[in-house]
Amino acid sequence: MDYRERLLRLQHMIRENGAVGAVLVPGSNFYYLTGMAPLGSLERLFLLLLPAEGEPVVIAPQLYENELGNWEFGRILLWRDGENPYRLFRGVLSEHAPEGGSLFVDDAMPIGLLLGTGILGKYRLERIGPIVSELRVIKSREEVEFLQKAAEIVDKTFYALLEQGLEGRTEKELATWLDCAMKRLGAEGVSFEPIVASGPNSANPHHRSTDRKIRKGDVVVFDYGARYGGYCSDVTRTVVVGKPSENVLTVYEVVKEAQEGACRAVRAGVLARDVDAVARETIAKAGYGEYFIHRTGHGLGLDVHEEPYISPESSVALRAGMVFTIEPGIYLPGKFGVRIEDDVLVEGGHGLRLTKATRELLCV
Amino acid sequence: MDYRERLLRLQHMIRENGAVGAVLVPGSNFYYLTGMAPLGSLERLFLLLLPAEGEPVVIAPQLYENELGNWEFGRILLWRDGENPYRLFRGVLSEHAPEGGSLFVDDAMPIGLLLGTGILGKYRLERIGPIVSELRVIKSREEVEFLQKAAEIVDKTFYALLEQGLEGRTEKELATWLDCAMKRLGAEGVSFEPIVASGPNSANPHHRSTDRKIRKGDVVVFDYGARYGGYCSDVTRTVVVGKPSENVLTVYEVVKEAQEGACRAVRAGVLARDVDAVARETIAKAGYGEYFIHRTGHGLGLDVHEEPYISPESSVALRAGMVFTIEPGIYLPGKFGVRIEDDVLVEGGHGLRLTKATRELLCV
Repeated sequence: MDYRERLLRLQHMIRENGAVGAVLVPGSNFYYLTGMAPLGSLERLFLLLLPAEGEPVVIAPQLYENELGNWEFGRILLWRDGENPYRLFRGVLSEHAPEGGSLFVDDAMPIGLLLGTGILGKYRLERIGPIVSELRVIKSREEVEFLQKAAEIVDKTFYALLEQGLEGRTEKELATWLDCAMKRLGAEGVSFEPIVASGPNSANPHHRSTDRKIRKGDVVVFDYGARYGGYCSDVTRTVVVGKPSENVLTVYEVVKEAQEGACRAVRAGVLARDVDAVARETIAKAGYGEYFIHRTGHGLGLDVHEEPYISPESSVALRAGMVFTIEPGIYLPGKFGVRIEDDVLVEGGHGLRLTKATRELLCV
Repeated sequence: MDYRERLLRLQHMIRENGAVGAVLVPGSNFYYLTGMAPLGSLERLFLLLLPAEGEPVVIAPQLYENELGNWEFGRILLWRDGENPYRLFRGVLSEHAPEGGSLFVDDAMPIGLLLGTGILGKYRLERIGPIVSELRVIKSREEVEFLQKAAEIVDKTFYALLEQGLEGRTEKELATWLDCAMKRLGAEGVSFEPIVASGPNSANPHHRSTDRKIRKGDVVVFDYGARYGGYCSDVTRTVVVGKPSENVLTVYEVVKEAQEGACRAVRAGVLARDVDAVARETIAKAGYGEYFIHRTGHGLGLDVHEEPYISPESSVALRAGMVFTIEPGIYLPGKFGVRIEDDVLVEGGHGLRLTKATRELLCV
């Protein structure tokens, strides 16, 4: 990854916005700009100061020196246990960023840390999220390769899942199985705790896996994602244990049509809300409009939810290199729910699915 | 858990500190006070306002209504996608907390959220961490039961690990194995990503597991923890593959003596730094003082690192109900490292080990 290029582009944006600098803490923006993801670092001050002009400065605990391995783009100031790293930071900040100016701060910075920095009241604070997002939203070839690999892992996991017997297993057991299967298949971690929602639980899109045992006739929604090279995949498939009812068959077909239609509607230049509308209108026409209760999708990258959001309010125009989910669903309270989700890359003017597992209804 | 009691005690502390209220966001303090751990909630505003007087108020997204299940201690304000939850919050805040006063804020609140709340510049902000910690540091019987269960899981995992062949497996493979074994044995999650550090890597206490294959003669450090009922365990054992060298035997004995001595030194009324000193002096007397490069331990609870810290600087007096690790180590750069870590509860005036796996040197 070309961290120098990213830092220079962000520095340019800082100047264009008339700000004096930016302060970032470990997390996805920090990783994007530096390639560093120090473990357990929020306990000891570890941050990046990117002034409007001049070299970036990293302040890090001596104990984590090994995490700095490849950092070659600016100054490094190490502090030892017993020293006051905030004093060190305040010195560097006042040297590089004149008080009274606008200062971009990492959206993820915990306020406990902010209160130690002495920034408060001395600068006009602005969220850096929106400007870093302008860079992060377009994925490079290297980033796409990581996203593809993360998508391959969830596809393989799905086919391995189908070979597991579902009946009689609890949602929690299967959620743990998904977690471990993804890691065995090469994931460095999960994008989020896998969701297994069975029977009436499938009607809740934010279900938390329970001890409920899966039984014959259940609709089961599996929503899970893998992390590879820092990048996230996120997939949902809905299966039926045994023979599906007519109602399930009908709803499944509507969701499938909505999802496939929205995937086909993805093109460079199209607005995100118009892709959302394709899914939403398909579902509404079939008479289930009120049961599609969330947005159609969200961007994917170092965060599992990031720009661009595929929602009725989003006027973002899709561009080559954007990656996001398409995941319409229908949720019939007390009965069942169906959701189908793929990860889609805008490439060559249209949408390319990164997750490729079958979208046909599988009865297991 | 008695959430009402906790909320009332915190409210009392807020008044004693002359503050107008406290604002908390999902995370460990929030869970401690409400029992709620909403999934993926930082994307949509979800918070608790505890005014100095009167009822607590929870603001939550309608979509997460099911997460509120048992909440019965105050008002609930739900907002729908498309509404502005920050406006809702500002209304409630100005109604309950007079501007210009001191306001406690959750240390974990991300600044991106803070900037939306309009708090900045209107209140004197103070970290709530130190005052909630006064409550959290003493564990109730119910909390101890969760901590015990989390400790049992890591003990069982250790014995299962010994039945795995280590030679020829990579650090990463074994780290994933530990992760999944803890979950199979009942953990709801891990306290942190397991650390497997083999051969010269064991000399780095903050090692990140690699693709290095374990070979005969290696010292291997396993540092891992389980989460149960929200509470964390954290254990370290060091084993040798094959026959240990004289040097390894000597170092292991010193660390074991230091760790056992520090565990025995735990008593109600003793200062944390005096427990640290027992471990530190044992290691120094044996001539390895400069190779013990971290504190002796840290508190355990809903966070894997919390009060009380067992360090040379800590003048905290140990009290019944405190739970913390005792984990001295010796790290010989380029050669090997040894660490032994147990979780200890102060009970009946002295220290009771929650993790009970053998501390004898095992050669596998």
